[in-house]
Amino acid sequence: MDETALAQQVGQVMFANDRATRETVGMDLLSCEPGRASMRMRVQDKHLNGHQTCHGGFIFTLADSTFAFACNSHNHNAVAAACSIEFLKPAHLGDVLHSEGVEQVLSGRHGIYDVKVINQRGETVALFRGKSAQIPGMVVNP
Amino acid sequence: MDETALAQQVGQVMFANDRATRETVGMDLLSCEPGRASMRMRVQDKHLNGHQTCHGGFIFTLADSTFAFACNSHNHNAVAAACSIEFLKPAHLGDVLHSEGVEQVLSGRHGIYDVKVINQRGETVALFRGKSAQIPGMVVNP
Amino acid sequence: MDETALAQQVGQVMFANDRATRETVGMDLLSCEPGRASMRMRVQDKHLNGHQTCHGGFIFTLADSTFAFACNSHNHNAVAAACSIEFLKPAHLGDVLHSEGVEQVLSGRHGIYDVKVINQRGETVALFRGKSAQIPGMVVNP
Amino acid sequence: MDETALAQQVGQVMFANDRATRETVGMDLLSCEPGRASMRMRVQDKHLNGHQTCHGGFIFTLADSTFAFACNSHNHNAVAAACSIEFLKPAHLGDVLHSEGVEQVLSGRHGIYDVKVINQRGETVALFRGKSAQIPGMVVNP
Repeated sequence: MDETALAQQVGQVMFANDRATRETVGMDLLSCEPGRASMRMRVQDKHLNGHQTCHGGFIFTLADSTFAFACNSHNHNAVAAACSIEFLKPAHLGDVLHSEGVEQVLSGRHGIYDVKVINQRGETVALFRGKSAQIPGMVVNP
Repeated sequence: MDETALAQQVGQVMFANDRATRETVGMDLLSCEPGRASMRMRVQDKHLNGHQTCHGGFIFTLADSTFAFACNSHNHNAVAAACSIEFLKPAHLGDVLHSEGVEQVLSGRHGIYDVKVINQRGETVALFRGKSAQIPGMVVNP
Repeated sequence: MDETALAQQVGQVMFANDRATRETVGMDLLSCEPGRASMRMRVQDKHLNGHQTCHGGFIFTLADSTFAFACNSHNHNAVAAACSIEFLKPAHLGDVLHSEGVEQVLSGRHGIYDVKVINQRGETVALFRGKSAQIPGMVVNP
Repeated sequence: MDETALAQQVGQVMFANDRATRETVGMDLLSCEPGRASMRMRVQDKHLNGHQTCHGGFIFTLADSTFAFACNSHNHNAVAAACSIEFLKPAHLGDVLHSEGVEQVLSGRHGIYDVKVINQRGETVALFRGKSAQIPGMVVNP
């Protein structure tokens, strides 16, 4: 299987097993390619905090899941070691957020991934950077 | 009203209005004091990711909500500008996570808050640092 | 004056006045364009720490100066509010480090800049992200 | 040798070999204890940037060296994997900066250290967090 098809399969299997991402938060996986992934989330009532804006935790979770798909896309199990996020604009009920994650460096067991979250007007809502660590095991048996 | 009673009231009002924190993620607010807050979350099925561990997004959200209570505790509306998190140990189904957030600096409109997340064995699960920015308005009318 | 010529002039004036960057650390400014800058530093004896590798503080300083040129390039005074850096490879005596800084977002008074530091073999030595805040004043009188 | 005496010896040996810290930047090592260190730096002409304030790179380097002493204090060689810094107040010519670094977590090969930099008026100039990774070797032969 070539690496593009493998990444796609990894994405499908991980997404199917990831109840938090799929159901509790309610994201869609748009693509999973080698070192890249993109996702989407519509801001719903259940995402609102006390200021009646989208809780930053869900914007983080959208970016973090996108990072997870990108860093597992090579079919080596990988987990997040550290993440940082800059919140640039609030997200409101009904906004549709898109995230794009891209591998910046993969060196030995560690990788760095940048994720950008934009809204339906193309405005940048958040910038996220995640550091991954590979752990034993594969996502799918190729 | 003294500042301790005010912080407690801010916590109660924010928590009641924060559906994401209270219901979707399912945290408890244990305390809200001037510049401090503590929360608790039991890891449930709905928090699990594809590795069948607690999605890091929910560990972040626990820390981020704790930070939000701590930085709003003075009754000036404040939002998160940036956050970083180090994931040190995974959290598993049934684990009970406690978070403690403490103001490190509050200078003008900006504050820095450190949050530590531990599990029921006292092991550190994550360290979080958040930067807040005050915005116009108050949480409660004192 | 167009913005490209202005950015170039800002770079020249800032560099001439920045003794720390030019002399104490010993960097070269390669370019200063609107929202971008690039610099170079050869690792010298004076940069070595107790492990006889380049002190991470100088790798940071190279990235931080590159960020400073990029975020001042619009001729509004700007300072660093926060920075993060990932150290990926050590730098050794005689290595020549190149840094490239690019504006990711500029929104109101705040900007986010990413800087990549590579060595003479094209290997990534560090990834840096800086957050700027504009302050009153201009670098040059246009 | 007990661990306190060992940490002190590690500090002396590292400091003597660290030309960047001692000479180029010009810091003093005030103490090196198990998991802790403190340092001092007077802001001199050579530290000034184009705004005629202390270049943030040197404030970072002060914190980074303090972190290095703290994370090597157990006499296992350790290097910085990632750092973040919040700049809260500028430092001016003649200011005397003190840094205090404290181990937050040490788990396996990785540790987290927080460093606070204050000036002679006790104002917080910067907050720094560093993540260390142990590498083979010891600083001194005990």
